[in-house]
Amino acid sequence: MQIAFALYPGFTALDFTGPYQVLTNVPGEEVVLVTAEPDRVSDDMGLLHLDVATGLDAVMAPDIVVVPGGPGRSTAAAVDSPLVDWLRAVHPGTTWTTSVCTGALILGAAGILEGLPATTHWLSYDELAACGALPTEQRVVIDGKIVTGAGVSAGIDMAFTLVAKQWGEDVAKAIQLGIEYDPQPPFDSGSPSKASTEIRELVEAVMRG
Amino acid sequence: MQIAFALYPGFTALDFTGPYQVLTNVPGEEVVLVTAEPDRVSDDMGLLHLDVATGLDAVMAPDIVVVPGGPGRSTAAAVDSPLVDWLRAVHPGTTWTTSVCTGALILGAAGILEGLPATTHWLSYDELAACGALPTEQRVVIDGKIVTGAGVSAGIDMAFTLVAKQWGEDVAKAIQLGIEYDPQPPFDSGSPSKASTEIRELVEAVMRG
Repeated sequence: MQIAFALYPGFTALDFTGPYQVLTNVPGEEVVLVTAEPDRVSDDMGLLHLDVATGLDAVMAPDIVVVPGGPGRSTAAAVDSPLVDWLRAVHPGTTWTTSVCTGALILGAAGILEGLPATTHWLSYDELAACGALPTEQRVVIDGKIVTGAGVSAGIDMAFTLVAKQWGEDVAKAIQLGIEYDPQPPFDSGSPSKASTEIRELVEAVMRG
Repeated sequence: MQIAFALYPGFTALDFTGPYQVLTNVPGEEVVLVTAEPDRVSDDMGLLHLDVATGLDAVMAPDIVVVPGGPGRSTAAAVDSPLVDWLRAVHPGTTWTTSVCTGALILGAAGILEGLPATTHWLSYDELAACGALPTEQRVVIDGKIVTGAGVSAGIDMAFTLVAKQWGEDVAKAIQLGIEYDPQPPFDSGSPSKASTEIRELVEAVMRG
């Protein structure tokens, strides 16, 4: 299978690299990074600069598409870019079309989530609903061939779910052991229902800028 | 504070980007990527190509150093590179010196772990012991100012532990909520004690290659 990660300026690093780390460990599949204008694609921090040599038009029949998220200004620019047309063109032929975090808003802009349950970063449910999707407070949402993951780090769980569906549970479990994915967060503050009100309000204020 | 991620050819993507995603969200600190020969640094899959412009000699007083791991051939080359001399030179001045996965073997080669408890990828305990360290089967090991994380994905937990120590628990909890780090692995196969014997033997065979 050909697995395409669709990158754009201002993507969030872990949204991309979480699933990348899982999916590049599936034996025998082709992974390709694609972007609208092949060149240097930098992350939302402006610190991570990726050389991406492959344009969208060079990959018109991917079997799996992964779209990472990014801050509002980045995803807004992505929605205004050829990426959305590319998604519209390739989605009918994919086996799986997936997103992490606000990458769902880019799928949504391509009309892919119309009327479907999906998830995104917890601060972006309203925007996801505005795309016609049905925001669902789960870490990973599967609807037919569309798999969406919640905020940033949820891309890892999304990818393991996908690997199990496509290649079987043993492959997922082997990769999980290989990357020692036995998470032990020192705190239990990773979702709005678990974090304190003070922490939630702080994060909302910072992230809504 | 200045936080330096020390990269080298063949590093493992998530070893680096897990802590990167956490530490770049600490407000007001400087994050810099450094490498022995500034240029394009590619990951162990040969698919992720990073432009890294800063050489090791440009960053001689980092407050925090993070060394990611990589496969045996990559860390062996790193151990033979100026990175080890750089670690010897900067470590006495750091506030925290840290590693993820087999990055511990590079700290070990610099003599930093002599006689100290530390962790690494579960397949590399013997090599860690050969560096004079005391391999410790924990996800994150803190000894004084040295923090080591277990395999690949453990860098995320290592970074949250570090953030709580340096900037306080509320900062760690806010970043945790910001990147929605509420992990829900679909399987419980992320450590050698939890995986089945068959899965463990398979992963050992593949990773020892």
